[in-house]
Amino acid sequence: MGRIRSTSAEELVNAATKKATELRAAVCVAIVDAGGHLQAFRRMDHAMLGSIDISQKKARTSAYFGLNSEVLGQASQPGGPFYGVENSNGGLITFSGGVPLIDNTGETTGAIGVSGGTSEQDAAIARAGAAAFSA
Amino acid sequence: MGRIRSTSAEELVNAATKKATELRAAVCVAIVDAGGHLQAFRRMDHAMLGSIDISQKKARTSAYFGLNSEVLGQASQPGGPFYGVENSNGGLITFSGGVPLIDNTGETTGAIGVSGGTSEQDAAIARAGAAAFSA
Amino acid sequence: MGRIRSTSAEELVNAATKKATELRAAVCVAIVDAGGHLQAFRRMDHAMLGSIDISQKKARTSAYFGLNSEVLGQASQPGGPFYGVENSNGGLITFSGGVPLIDNTGETTGAIGVSGGTSEQDAAIARAGAAAFSA
Amino acid sequence: MGRIRSTSAEELVNAATKKATELRAAVCVAIVDAGGHLQAFRRMDHAMLGSIDISQKKARTSAYFGLNSEVLGQASQPGGPFYGVENSNGGLITFSGGVPLIDNTGETTGAIGVSGGTSEQDAAIARAGAAAFSA
Repeated sequence: MGRIRSTSAEELVNAATKKATELRAAVCVAIVDAGGHLQAFRRMDHAMLGSIDISQKKARTSAYFGLNSEVLGQASQPGGPFYGVENSNGGLITFSGGVPLIDNTGETTGAIGVSGGTSEQDAAIARAGAAAFSA
Repeated sequence: MGRIRSTSAEELVNAATKKATELRAAVCVAIVDAGGHLQAFRRMDHAMLGSIDISQKKARTSAYFGLNSEVLGQASQPGGPFYGVENSNGGLITFSGGVPLIDNTGETTGAIGVSGGTSEQDAAIARAGAAAFSA
Repeated sequence: MGRIRSTSAEELVNAATKKATELRAAVCVAIVDAGGHLQAFRRMDHAMLGSIDISQKKARTSAYFGLNSEVLGQASQPGGPFYGVENSNGGLITFSGGVPLIDNTGETTGAIGVSGGTSEQDAAIARAGAAAFSA
Repeated sequence: MGRIRSTSAEELVNAATKKATELRAAVCVAIVDAGGHLQAFRRMDHAMLGSIDISQKKARTSAYFGLNSEVLGQASQPGGPFYGVENSNGGLITFSGGVPLIDNTGETTGAIGVSGGTSEQDAAIARAGAAAFSA
């Protein structure tokens, strides 16, 4: 299973919160490893309390499935093939803001989860964090 | 983070149950602080058992997001940007009956949650309770 | 299953918090019905956050077993007949502060749970609350 | 209820991990606010997976009771007045490594929790983190 070094996780968090500040969003940022276990977390000032758990669940969702969280959400709508998948794994979050970290062999090494802004902001902030990742 | 005094919380519960009696509804009323922690709770005679947990989850939902619970529910419908958000934070309730308590600096100091009547009754009772709040 | 009227539950809470004030303790007080379901709750100013859950678990423990919570605790010590019983029922608390409410037919009608003071204070406050109960 | 600024939380994490490095320990460090909600978290390289949850529960335990986690543990031993308290509040950890952050008015503003080293190391690392706190 891939690993994220502690210093690398902090760089991802820094890149994400920098982007959030540019977008004037107050978010929570969570980094998990390939096993979905928390590696680093930061709550920005004025972020909603509800975002603490959501950011971590987005990261875990992306790590467990190797997908952007919203991709899973497309399949979990009523009538869809994975309807209700959110009830598994201690609770998944399947809207945007979770992005897997893929290493140069194509393997999922971890994930980043962001919550607190609009759907578009969370996705952009998570992408900015993931872009700082180098396997 | 704001606080609600114990005597103030009781006043909110009294205002809410007074309104419920006027509307001939039997409800549960929960007051939580800014951290979502229970401050006061009352179950009126003949209120449904299922409302005990729902009222508390509505209050917590409003405290965690600083929003009326049903506002979050508008975004959590199938196809919406926060579809399935109810699976986070130990279980959220995103229909009406949760109202945040905003102090005079605009900060969320806590919330009230009401369950047991119709959707409209719960919302009106929660508003009546929140109206008794003075920061 | 016995019932506690809402007004009666408030009287118990008032009697308990009055006693707590006399003892200079800041506590949480929970009243549950015969089924262990929350009827009324009050958190006094300055009570520890950890007491919110403990007071409710003490009340539920007493309602579920018809015993003072510490009586169960005597049997749950290492080597005792009910060792580890605290892991059942969503978590029990088996030290003092939970007292069942017994009606005049000898039936358990509910319970009161108190947390926030010393062991002796919690027990005395719970007894003061229970003494206000008349079936 | 007190608050910890995001930058301040990072300083505490930095002070704690610096101390851990000096002690050649690999730990997880969690900072929570007065309500016990996660503010910042870092897992050092080679820290045990089991420490992720323990560090957070230590921090929450200290925030909920305003005490070093091991103080509660002294009272929760078999035969003690709070035996089994660990079964409350979603799981508490009552051995050393949790330290409350007390502001200059004597109020609990949050807490730090450390796990991964020996009992003495965790305590020393948590104290080093807490020492970086200025209300």
